[in-house]
Amino acid sequence: MPGGRDFRYAASGKIGTMTEQQDSPAPVDGLAIAILGGTGDQGRGLARRFAIAGHSVTIGSRSAERAEAAAAELGAPGIRGMANAEAARAGDIVIAAVPWEGHGKLLATLAPDLAGKIVVDCVNPLGFDSRGAYALPVPEGSAAEQAAALLPDSRVVAAFHHVSAVLLLDPEVGSFDLDVLVLGDDREATDLVQALAARIPGMRGVYAGRLRNARQVEALTANLISVNRRYKSHAGLRITDI
Amino acid sequence: MPGGRDFRYAASGKIGTMTEQQDSPAPVDGLAIAILGGTGDQGRGLARRFAIAGHSVTIGSRSAERAEAAAAELGAPGIRGMANAEAARAGDIVIAAVPWEGHGKLLATLAPDLAGKIVVDCVNPLGFDSRGAYALPVPEGSAAEQAAALLPDSRVVAAFHHVSAVLLLDPEVGSFDLDVLVLGDDREATDLVQALAARIPGMRGVYAGRLRNARQVEALTANLISVNRRYKSHAGLRITDI
Repeated sequence: MPGGRDFRYAASGKIGTMTEQQDSPAPVDGLAIAILGGTGDQGRGLARRFAIAGHSVTIGSRSAERAEAAAAELGAPGIRGMANAEAARAGDIVIAAVPWEGHGKLLATLAPDLAGKIVVDCVNPLGFDSRGAYALPVPEGSAAEQAAALLPDSRVVAAFHHVSAVLLLDPEVGSFDLDVLVLGDDREATDLVQALAARIPGMRGVYAGRLRNARQVEALTANLISVNRRYKSHAGLRITDI
Repeated sequence: MPGGRDFRYAASGKIGTMTEQQDSPAPVDGLAIAILGGTGDQGRGLARRFAIAGHSVTIGSRSAERAEAAAAELGAPGIRGMANAEAARAGDIVIAAVPWEGHGKLLATLAPDLAGKIVVDCVNPLGFDSRGAYALPVPEGSAAEQAAALLPDSRVVAAFHHVSAVLLLDPEVGSFDLDVLVLGDDREATDLVQALAARIPGMRGVYAGRLRNARQVEALTANLISVNRRYKSHAGLRITDI
């Protein structure tokens, strides 16, 4: 495969359309979702959307009181707040939506609580300066690989990097024009997270490779921020021909 | 801007539709295109499409004879072949479509020929093993930043990383469902390359940040290869909400 241009496959199999995905019973039906760092914009936004989709959702925070207040404020049925460790134990699928700065320390602390669970990392290690956003170096390669290194007994998946918190929290926004890139080394886990993404109207979960290729998906958020600045948009990605 | 989620802009300005872009005279009209490493699949594919769009195109190769043969074989009007140095001098916009292995050495050699020109780097530094493609480390950060370091008198732009060579060369394919991400630090140069991308039917050129954010755009090709394997597709990207 010279030059990295391995696009030599006949176009044939397609993944389901949004309608098909939503008409079929998703394998995530009935699974409890927990969101670590769930009082941030991204965490609250995802909590709101998964609650609307019918999931039981637990927001985790360093402070149980702040988590409870955020849950109450969201006002969607089925959302509750707890301290991060209790939230981690309450979820079948646990989403890490914490700031990059505290990512490794929090996950290391919660490793016993997260054992056996699917952990979805949506953290973007970015820095900002006067010229905009840029990717920060991560010794493990990516936030998701750092999570996998710290959580050897969990099934780590990377997803939801490019979803706008503003749109997730906007009650006027009913549907989203974007695909969620889902990465991981455990097929059953990535399948479940793809189905979870499809619970939010308009979104598709698209398998996009192994964890070793998570770095560029996290870092691409810097490019989407550049797009947003140039075009005054809330840019998202769609993958074509699937 | 905590957590790198800076999507806080009102949706308003949109870039032109494909039809608008093609109806207006593009600022690239009449510019000569040269393609270094133009005898490879990607180079020949781009040469063919830009020739069809009405540009004079010069294919460059280490061997002038091989370049001439490739140009003749493509059979489109306005394509000729030359040795890389002569091709570089013949182009107003020079596209580097060489294998990553020889990228730095070739550009260093051609620096005098490329002075003052817009150099478009579309090289993806990827490795392959039994699990698929992965991003190779690049000391300068990215192939595009390596080009910029080696070509201080050129205007380096990164673009065309995700375009399928197979589709470019397929005479049955008239239109493409993908956006070309265009990165660079020189606004006039990125504007021109965006317009160049729009010369290929269906493609849009979308500004996606500065060269310091090129690494993840190059590396994302590894993810598209994973998508292609999973879904049996020729995957491309579209940016939504612009």
